[in-house]
Amino acid sequence: MNTDERNILLKIAYDGSNFCGWQRQPGSRTVCGELETVLSRLCGINIKLDAVSRTDAGVHALGQQASFKGVFGLPTDRIAKAVNDALAMDRLQRVGEIAIIEAKEMPPDFHARYSSKGKRYIYRISDSAEMNVFRRNYCYQVGRPLDVSAMRKAADFIAGEHDFRCFMAMGSSPQKSTVRKIFEADVRREDEDIVFSVAGDGFLYNMVRIITGTLVETGLGRRSPEDMQKTLASLDRSEAGHTAPPQGLYLKEVFYTSPPFTART
Amino acid sequence: MNTDERNILLKIAYDGSNFCGWQRQPGSRTVCGELETVLSRLCGINIKLDAVSRTDAGVHALGQQASFKGVFGLPTDRIAKAVNDALAMDRLQRVGEIAIIEAKEMPPDFHARYSSKGKRYIYRISDSAEMNVFRRNYCYQVGRPLDVSAMRKAADFIAGEHDFRCFMAMGSSPQKSTVRKIFEADVRREDEDIVFSVAGDGFLYNMVRIITGTLVETGLGRRSPEDMQKTLASLDRSEAGHTAPPQGLYLKEVFYTSPPFTART
Repeated sequence: MNTDERNILLKIAYDGSNFCGWQRQPGSRTVCGELETVLSRLCGINIKLDAVSRTDAGVHALGQQASFKGVFGLPTDRIAKAVNDALAMDRLQRVGEIAIIEAKEMPPDFHARYSSKGKRYIYRISDSAEMNVFRRNYCYQVGRPLDVSAMRKAADFIAGEHDFRCFMAMGSSPQKSTVRKIFEADVRREDEDIVFSVAGDGFLYNMVRIITGTLVETGLGRRSPEDMQKTLASLDRSEAGHTAPPQGLYLKEVFYTSPPFTART
Repeated sequence: MNTDERNILLKIAYDGSNFCGWQRQPGSRTVCGELETVLSRLCGINIKLDAVSRTDAGVHALGQQASFKGVFGLPTDRIAKAVNDALAMDRLQRVGEIAIIEAKEMPPDFHARYSSKGKRYIYRISDSAEMNVFRRNYCYQVGRPLDVSAMRKAADFIAGEHDFRCFMAMGSSPQKSTVRKIFEADVRREDEDIVFSVAGDGFLYNMVRIITGTLVETGLGRRSPEDMQKTLASLDRSEAGHTAPPQGLYLKEVFYTSPPFTART
């Protein structure tokens, strides 16, 4: 029997299509709400999760991280299976919308969010002319060919430490600073998709989706790659592109040690 | 202005995840119900669709076919775009859960279902040990390795004309005959999935899903490929395997001319 308070870190994947985002809200179905309900029942205590990223409605996670503390009986190495079984669709389809990939015990002073050093998002875009009903929740279907090399050139200007105010949604709550450090920003074709991958020490509200919208406009030839510098320097949201839809965005991973990134040259 | 009655054939793709199947039912969200509502509004007349297959809840279509008759103004070559725009998620994500692939005018005596000569279903199975939250609605995640060559041998016994009563769901409405002709039945690995493809002149209720469940049990080593012969000869549902979940099943195509199939030897 465990009588000591444990500090548990969960690595979580979820399909955000049918959730009103991560953060618990009364009357809404949220990833955090679903997980807290199941965890509280399995552990027999009231559990509150602290996650690294409060992903928006429709946004997915491949490696969200969230931690909680408590005194409870369920052994740490059985948490993932117990939660995943409880969330499974049925007896044959043993998987649900949320899956715990890993659960591990951390030192008492560890906190999923405050201890993190940064995170990586990816954004999936399809430029196929054919719209695919099966992918509507999983990528941004632009419907027209994109110039990937122009998008990559534009993304190069994002890397480094900048004031990213131009990529913050209008009406966001005030920030102490709008300066962030981007470790890596890259655009590549992967199978039939175009994937924008961006790692940084932090992101402003809607920052990845607004950068993606700006990159898509670059790929369509409506902006030149070099425009990205002017847009950044403007510090003006209206100079940046449209906000790409939430469906293509995935929280890929969270860093707990400073990642050994070197900006591409 | 069109004043003649037209007979329109639609080729339709849909993601069945969030529908209670094809067939219109009061109080339930169905593919037919959604399409009839949109078509009736766009054409300004009350439209009733006749489809080839009344797919169940959770079952998908890559090439469903449905026809309707009526006198209305919308030109045939604008039907697909008008319906697809009406069903799109939003201004940026211009795709919905249902898409019309093609609309064409047919002779007055044509009927999507009665004129059809057969259809092909595919069933997607994943045997990866890692459960994937993003694929829970799109394939049967068995979670253990499957012997594809044993499954293919078992599928060989399905091809040809047989009484398929053993693969009909208990409690199905009585059939004049439970004999069907299967033109082709094959199992292959495609990328990371195992795909069962089966074409025939008709299918009993749940037939593809029960054959798939039987093939999965063969792939797991619980049945020998040769058992398939005994199962067929038994005419007994309890001799066949479990009913595979709906999520892996796709109506692939409908045949309107006798397809030039030759059973594999």
